[in-house]
Amino acid sequence: MNIPEKMAAALSAVKEKSPLVHHLTNYVTVNDCANIVIAIGASPVMADELTEVEEMVSIASALVLNIGTLNSRTIESMLAAGKKAKSLGIPIILDPVGVGATTLRTNTAQRIIDEVQPTVLRGNMSEIKVLAGLNVQTKGVDSVASEENGKVIAKKLALGWNCIVAITGKTDIVSDGKLVCQIDNGHRILSDVSGTGCMATSLIGAYCGANQDYLTATVAGIVSMGLAGELAQQSLTPEEGIGTFKIRLLDKIYNMTPENLAKGSKVTCE
Amino acid sequence: MNIPEKMAAALSAVKEKSPLVHHLTNYVTVNDCANIVIAIGASPVMADELTEVEEMVSIASALVLNIGTLNSRTIESMLAAGKKAKSLGIPIILDPVGVGATTLRTNTAQRIIDEVQPTVLRGNMSEIKVLAGLNVQTKGVDSVASEENGKVIAKKLALGWNCIVAITGKTDIVSDGKLVCQIDNGHRILSDVSGTGCMATSLIGAYCGANQDYLTATVAGIVSMGLAGELAQQSLTPEEGIGTFKIRLLDKIYNMTPENLAKGSKVTCE
Amino acid sequence: MNIPEKMAAALSAVKEKSPLVHHLTNYVTVNDCANIVIAIGASPVMADELTEVEEMVSIASALVLNIGTLNSRTIESMLAAGKKAKSLGIPIILDPVGVGATTLRTNTAQRIIDEVQPTVLRGNMSEIKVLAGLNVQTKGVDSVASEENGKVIAKKLALGWNCIVAITGKTDIVSDGKLVCQIDNGHRILSDVSGTGCMATSLIGAYCGANQDYLTATVAGIVSMGLAGELAQQSLTPEEGIGTFKIRLLDKIYNMTPENLAKGSKVTCE
Repeated sequence: MNIPEKMAAALSAVKEKSPLVHHLTNYVTVNDCANIVIAIGASPVMADELTEVEEMVSIASALVLNIGTLNSRTIESMLAAGKKAKSLGIPIILDPVGVGATTLRTNTAQRIIDEVQPTVLRGNMSEIKVLAGLNVQTKGVDSVASEENGKVIAKKLALGWNCIVAITGKTDIVSDGKLVCQIDNGHRILSDVSGTGCMATSLIGAYCGANQDYLTATVAGIVSMGLAGELAQQSLTPEEGIGTFKIRLLDKIYNMTPENLAKGSKVTCE
Repeated sequence: MNIPEKMAAALSAVKEKSPLVHHLTNYVTVNDCANIVIAIGASPVMADELTEVEEMVSIASALVLNIGTLNSRTIESMLAAGKKAKSLGIPIILDPVGVGATTLRTNTAQRIIDEVQPTVLRGNMSEIKVLAGLNVQTKGVDSVASEENGKVIAKKLALGWNCIVAITGKTDIVSDGKLVCQIDNGHRILSDVSGTGCMATSLIGAYCGANQDYLTATVAGIVSMGLAGELAQQSLTPEEGIGTFKIRLLDKIYNMTPENLAKGSKVTCE
Repeated sequence: MNIPEKMAAALSAVKEKSPLVHHLTNYVTVNDCANIVIAIGASPVMADELTEVEEMVSIASALVLNIGTLNSRTIESMLAAGKKAKSLGIPIILDPVGVGATTLRTNTAQRIIDEVQPTVLRGNMSEIKVLAGLNVQTKGVDSVASEENGKVIAKKLALGWNCIVAITGKTDIVSDGKLVCQIDNGHRILSDVSGTGCMATSLIGAYCGANQDYLTATVAGIVSMGLAGELAQQSLTPEEGIGTFKIRLLDKIYNMTPENLAKGSKVTCE
C-alpha cells in the first residue's frame, strides 16, 4: 500500500475499533480535543488524578500528554500515567505546549521524554528546537522559527529519542528516524484558532490507538486536521471567521471518510 | 395535570425564577453546562474551592455534582457542598461520570451517595449498574450495557437510595421508587457529542432549582435535552456534523417554550 | 484624535504587535477567552502554576487575572504573577468574577487590589459595589444593582484605587478618575451567554498589551465586544439562539477593522 491507502486503512480501523484515548491535557482546549476524538470515531476520556491515572490508562488504547496548563499535581500524574502506558505497550503522544516559554515547561517535557519515552512527539518548530537544545526564541505557544531544516531536525531527533517526531507548521514534517514525510495539507487560518495543535495531537492519539504503524498514524492525524481545515476554510463566507471555522472543522472531521482522506492528502515520504 | 402539562409548568417556573445552579463539575464540558443552564432560563455558577463552596451553595437553588475530572481537592469540596446543600434542603444532582472505570470514581460516587444522599442520580446504564453492585464492564464514559431491565433497576435503586434515579440511553428511564417514566425523545447523534450527559444533568439541576416535584423536574430535564437533540439533528444538512449540531442544540434549548416542550415530549409514566 | 479615532489606532496596534496576553483565568470560559484574544489579533497564553507564572508574565505584554474559579493554589499564583507584572510595568487587568457571592472571592479580589494594584478593573455594578464597600446583594455572577450612579462610582473608585474602573451592564461606564466615558454599544443577548464579561476583560488585556493609553484600551475592548454583539445579534434568524450567537460573536471580532470599530462605536467621554 502507498501512504494514502495506508491512511485510509488507518481511519477505517479507528472507526471500527473506536479506541479509548486517555488524555491528561490542558483546560483551555480540552473540550475541542474530546469532540474531535469522537468526531474521528474514537472515544475520549480525561482523568488527571494521580490515584486513578494508572488504572484509567490500563483500559485505554492510547495516552495523550499535553502540558498546556501543567501544574505540580498533574505533572506527577502525567509521569505515572506515561510509565504505566509504557509498561503496557500503549502508545503515548506528547504535546510539549509552550516549551521554551518557561523553565518548568522545558524541564517537564524533558522529564517526560527521558522517563516515559513517548511514542510520538508533536510540536511546532520552536518547541521542537528547544527540546533539541537548539537556539530559539519562543513567543508563547506560537511558532516563529524557520522550517527550512525541518526534515534534517525531525529525522535526527526521531533517531535520538527513538520516537516519531512531528513538526507542524506551514508544512508539516513527520519522521521515525528512517522515513521522512512532508505534508502540505492545511490552511493558514488553522493557526488563528486556539487548540488546533492540541486537536492534531489528540487525532494522532486516536489513530495510534487503533493502528500499530505509528508513522502512518501520525501522518494520518496531521493530514486529517489539515484537510478538514482546508474544507472548513473553503466553506466560509466573507462574513464568517474563526468561530464558524472551528465548528466546521469538527463537522469536516465527523464526515471524513477513508476515501476522502486518501484522495485529499498531500503527502510525500522519502 | 398530566406529565406534559407538568413539564410545561416546570419550564415556566425555571424561566420565571431563574434559579442559581451551583456546579462542581468537570473541566471538559463545563462551558457547555454553563451555557445550557442559561439557555433554559436559569443561572449557573461554578465554584469548587473548599473554603467557599458552602457559602456559595447556600445562595443557590440547586447543586450539581459531576465527577468527570475529580481530584482529591475537589472530592472534599463536593462532599462539603453536598452536605451543606442537604442540610438546607437544596436539591443535589449527582452525575457519576466514568464510574466503574477506576476505583477512585466508584468509591467517590459511593461516598457521595452514602454521605450526601443526592436528590437525583443520573447516569448511563453501565454507570448505574456499577453503583448498584451489578456486574458490568465499563469502557470509559460510554454505556455498553443492555437496557432491557432498566425499569426494574431504576425503581429498585430509587427505593434503596431514596432518590430519583435516571438511566439515560437510547430509551431513558426515570423512577422515584414508585412511578417509573420512560422517555423516547432523543437521537443517536447526541452520543457523538462530548458532554450531552453532563448537560442533561445540568438541565435537571435547573429544573430542580425551580420546582418541588423532582420527578417531573428530572423527566423535564431529560426530555428538554432529547427534544432539542431531535430538532437540532433535523436541521442538519449532509455537510454538517457534530460541530454544528452542538451549536443548534443550545439554540433549540434557548428557543424552547413550555408549549413546545409539552407537545414534543414522548413520555409514559406508570 | 477623538475617541473613535483613538480606538481605531488602538486596534491597528493590536493587529500589528500581536501582544502576548498571559491569563490566569477560570476553566469555564477559558477557551472563549483564548479564541477572542486571537480573533482581535493578539496572542493568548494560559499558565497558572506558581513556579512558572513569573517567568511567563515576563515575556507577556499584558496580564489578565480572572477569579471565576479561584482556588488556594491559583490565588497565590495570581498574586505572584501580578506582583511580577507590576514590577515590570506590564498592565494588569482584574476581573473580580462573583465577588460578593463568597467571602473568599471578596477577600481575594481585595488582596489583588491592595497587593498588586491592577491597571484596569472590570466588573458589573454589583461586583464593583461590593469592592467599593457599598451595600449590595449579589446573585452569583449576574448584576442586579442599579446603574444610575455608575459615573460617580466609577470616577471615585478610579481615583481611590488609582486604576481604570470599568463597570459593564446595559450601559458601560469607564473612568480613569479624570475622564468618564459612557458606552452604549451592546445588546441584551450578550448577558445570555456565559463568558461575555470574561471575554470583554480579555479583549481589554489585548488592547492594553499593545497600547500605552489604557483608558482608550479599556473603552476599545468594551466597544469591540458590544459592537460585535450587536452585529452577531442582527445576523440571527428566529430559529437561532445563543449557540449560534457566540460563534458569530467570534466571527465579528475576527473581521472587525479599525474603521468599522470607529464607525460603530457609541462612546461619549466627559
